Amino acid sequence: MLLIKIGGAKNLNWKAIAEDLSNLSEPFILVHGANEHMKDITEAMGKEVRMITSPSGFTSRYSDKETMDIFLQAYCGMVNKRWVELLQQNGINAVGLSGIDGGLWRGKRKDKIIGKLDGESKIKVIRDNFTGNVEEVNTKLIDILISNDFMPVLTAPAISYDNEIMNIDNDRAVAVMVKDLKIKKMVMLFGAPGLLKDHKDETSLIKNISSTELDEMMQYADGRMKKKVLGAQEAFKNGLESMYWGDGRIESPISSSLEGKGTVIKI
Amino acid sequence: MLLIKIGGAKNLNWKAIAEDLSNLSEPFILVHGANEHMKDITEAMGKEVRMITSPSGFTSRYSDKETMDIFLQAYCGMVNKRWVELLQQNGINAVGLSGIDGGLWRGKRKDKIIGKLDGESKIKVIRDNFTGNVEEVNTKLIDILISNDFMPVLTAPAISYDNEIMNIDNDRAVAVMVKDLKIKKMVMLFGAPGLLKDHKDETSLIKNISSTELDEMMQYADGRMKKKVLGAQEAFKNGLESMYWGDGRIESPISSSLEGKGTVIKI
Repeated sequence: MLLIKIGGAKNLNWKAIAEDLSNLSEPFILVHGANEHMKDITEAMGKEVRMITSPSGFTSRYSDKETMDIFLQAYCGMVNKRWVELLQQNGINAVGLSGIDGGLWRGKRKDKIIGKLDGESKIKVIRDNFTGNVEEVNTKLIDILISNDFMPVLTAPAISYDNEIMNIDNDRAVAVMVKDLKIKKMVMLFGAPGLLKDHKDETSLIKNISSTELDEMMQYADGRMKKKVLGAQEAFKNGLESMYWGDGRIESPISSSLEGKGTVIKI
Repeated sequence: MLLIKIGGAKNLNWKAIAEDLSNLSEPFILVHGANEHMKDITEAMGKEVRMITSPSGFTSRYSDKETMDIFLQAYCGMVNKRWVELLQQNGINAVGLSGIDGGLWRGKRKDKIIGKLDGESKIKVIRDNFTGNVEEVNTKLIDILISNDFMPVLTAPAISYDNEIMNIDNDRAVAVMVKDLKIKKMVMLFGAPGLLKDHKDETSLIKNISSTELDEMMQYADGRMKKKVLGAQEAFKNGLESMYWGDGRIESPISSSLEGKGTVIKI
């Protein structure tokens, strides 16, 4: 089974991705983001997306109750269902689910986190934040859908052991999927040709990486890309054999990635 | 199997409904609305909900592409997932789905409708409207979920035969569910004690109706209630044996309805 992760940039070629998916011969699971759509909705509502920067430099979205309501609107509402519609138009019997449904993605909520909130000057302890890490996947729900020819289309958020909706990192949730579903091969599409040595120069593509070199690659990753490198490290630790990072803006984005036109990471 | 429909008013007692559901001994399907939440989101985005009034006086939401995006945010995003979270907190392994997922609710889109748009003075032909009627239910998706102890939590919109997302009337979609899933008993909860002779007087409750009297009841139904009467007529035509209309604002709303505290409609 192939796991395909599609980023939340707005410049991805949804139509080309859906067409490519309809030509796949193996079953697949799709996981998508909705980051930029969420920004749009937040702004349209006259609010702002606030980020928390951890002392070590990782950024994550400040996720209080109100933010999570908007998160649900963007990820589980608009983006998830527009993907399902497009896949249905391409002959794929897609079923859209979040990590909440059937306890699909479950883990521990962090009761507090330490970081600096956008617009504030100091690092502090933040307690009204619904975030955590996925630790378990309800594989039964995935299995019954796939064995009945339904194609799961998954998105954040997840649900805590105390049954609270919580924001999680999609890339790290995917690494847990790799372990629990014994996935060997993954494609990740985003708004760049792959991992770049210089993120402003699209010709500086790094073509081949061994999974043991991922630590070293962290120097080229900025912002959200850091999480993708971290997620990849976890996925390989969890049994993944190959990961293809490719350009989601072009025609035939999945087959191009699998042909090695982006960044290929192998054990 | 019991079918429970929960209206989209904001004054319903979600907590009491979820607690009551957790005490049910028979399996159930939940169908919910999100009408007032959608109004809130629409207003927060600085837009307005526009209604179409048909020549015969029925009203429906004007549903262009942009409206349907907000519809997805409210119904499939925020409200569906907050229901799933609350049910999980009450020990029910809920899975939230829309009528789009797995082609669950399918039907014909109306390529044009005739009516008067809010803010306009004349009846006209409206073509950029994504609405239709549900004609088929994908019972396989429901069956595999229930037989694996997952509880379906369903909401509009539906999907057309051409695979376009379309707004439908939830109450009439439910009538198709009654037929295709052979449902005999239904509970409907909303922000009133049941059907009222005078909708301003909550003591004017009509307690017992035979399904053959529903035509006559139309005189007491105003606005959205008209659709509930129509939906009920279709449901009884499709094999339903009893329908309980009850107050979703009170404690134990489902058990109270089943005990006959609201309006009881029987064959």
